[in-house]
Amino acid sequence: MELIDGNKIAAGIVAELKAAVAALPARKPCIALVRVGEDPASVSYVKRKEQTAAEIGITSRVILPPVAISQAELFALIDQLNADSAIDGILVQSPLPAHLDETAVFRRITPHKDVDGLGTINLGKIAQDDDSGFVGCTPAGIMELLARSGVRLAGRHVVVIGRSLLVGKPVALLAMQKKSWANATVTVCHSQTTGLPALTRQADVLIAAIGRAEFVTADMVKPGAVVIDVGVNRVADASRKNGYRLVGDVHFASVAPLAGKITPVPGGVGPMTVAMLMKNTLKAYRQQHPA
Amino acid sequence: MELIDGNKIAAGIVAELKAAVAALPARKPCIALVRVGEDPASVSYVKRKEQTAAEIGITSRVILPPVAISQAELFALIDQLNADSAIDGILVQSPLPAHLDETAVFRRITPHKDVDGLGTINLGKIAQDDDSGFVGCTPAGIMELLARSGVRLAGRHVVVIGRSLLVGKPVALLAMQKKSWANATVTVCHSQTTGLPALTRQADVLIAAIGRAEFVTADMVKPGAVVIDVGVNRVADASRKNGYRLVGDVHFASVAPLAGKITPVPGGVGPMTVAMLMKNTLKAYRQQHPA
Repeated sequence: MELIDGNKIAAGIVAELKAAVAALPARKPCIALVRVGEDPASVSYVKRKEQTAAEIGITSRVILPPVAISQAELFALIDQLNADSAIDGILVQSPLPAHLDETAVFRRITPHKDVDGLGTINLGKIAQDDDSGFVGCTPAGIMELLARSGVRLAGRHVVVIGRSLLVGKPVALLAMQKKSWANATVTVCHSQTTGLPALTRQADVLIAAIGRAEFVTADMVKPGAVVIDVGVNRVADASRKNGYRLVGDVHFASVAPLAGKITPVPGGVGPMTVAMLMKNTLKAYRQQHPA
Repeated sequence: MELIDGNKIAAGIVAELKAAVAALPARKPCIALVRVGEDPASVSYVKRKEQTAAEIGITSRVILPPVAISQAELFALIDQLNADSAIDGILVQSPLPAHLDETAVFRRITPHKDVDGLGTINLGKIAQDDDSGFVGCTPAGIMELLARSGVRLAGRHVVVIGRSLLVGKPVALLAMQKKSWANATVTVCHSQTTGLPALTRQADVLIAAIGRAEFVTADMVKPGAVVIDVGVNRVADASRKNGYRLVGDVHFASVAPLAGKITPVPGGVGPMTVAMLMKNTLKAYRQQHPA
């Protein structure tokens, strides 16, 4: 078994981006990070994005509207960022408070600044095998992890557990693209799938993105398979100071010994997402400032 | 084995649409049918669309630019149709002559008149489980055939052969949607898939959309499976006056006896596509003229 080290791979990407940004003229790429409210996880995610941006040399502008902001006011804010030529990418941190329509907010971001890749146009471009758009940071991070770990997908069977818009569907569409780095046979399973273990056992590459702690057990994995664990779940752990530990969607202890390669949680897919956000921001900058 | 009669089901939809259009006020839905050049298949397809529109009471405006029309001129024509409030839907008949960029042309059609569902926004909406858009006529026709034949998809395994933008990908995304009529487990296979028969034999519903004459043989189908044949291929036949006959992607003679339900070619998916185009045109009209 080989551990896929997301921290190391992400650090490599960050270093590449840093070198690329250093070579740019004075006006550096700039990302607007919009966080509504004080959700602790969101606070920590946005902070990490800010730090990584700074490390690379990407300017970030953190915008903190009050939790009570109305949909119309948030739209107006996004319109303003859309129109601001000093800003290359816009990220609205999910989840938004319940009174806001998240999909509508994501759609409001102009497609060429939609570095989180959640708008309709950028999703449609994935289906069109069109690389000019922005792929969401988690699916893009998974594809990059696989490529940089030497996993070839062509002709192999990728089984995705989970059909979310954030992960399952885009990664399925990416893996089946008619591209040299893709060309996989793809199966998408989910909560309504019957006979799940028989399907997942066929996977050469198994991507677990369902948000259920340690759901994937050894009997569901073919020996030698590549296992990508997208889950981040808190489980109670009295031995820890904070009372919990983080586990993935895969039961790591039993699956790791039989996997060919596997990502840990934490330290697998997670660190990749921030790196991919920065990569998208540089791409947005380049599209808006052709050399 | 039960034959899924696409002619009969399509005729039912046409009758429903006719009744719905009769109930509308004086200004009826209108579709612009743009055909570039004199490709014989395109001539016959556009004629059929015109006839079906007339039967339903939908106005059609057939526009026949010369085969040498430039991309810029075709864009200008589409812009004009986009802006024309008398037109609810726009269809540009595929294939276009080779000097025109088909994807760019489809993208030029404003999303709310894109009744063929080939633009980026309407594809993205399928991925977003958003029913407000337009689904391409072939994938929409397949879903309608299944629904009207009493085939339930929830929890069942749909295997699609072919990953085209016109059929394979959208129908895969539709079948996996979190909707009462969908919720299928979905596998997409294609030219680079290894071990295809072992995958297709798992299908409860097998959708063949690869454009290879009689490619799917009995050994690739599970007894009792529902088989949807999207292919329309010409094979030489000296016994026919015109020298050929039409066959699907499925070897009907050997597969039909073991299938639970199966669509014939011709008379299966084909007739559905024109009916779905008209259904989309009425939907476009209703969105633009809310009651």
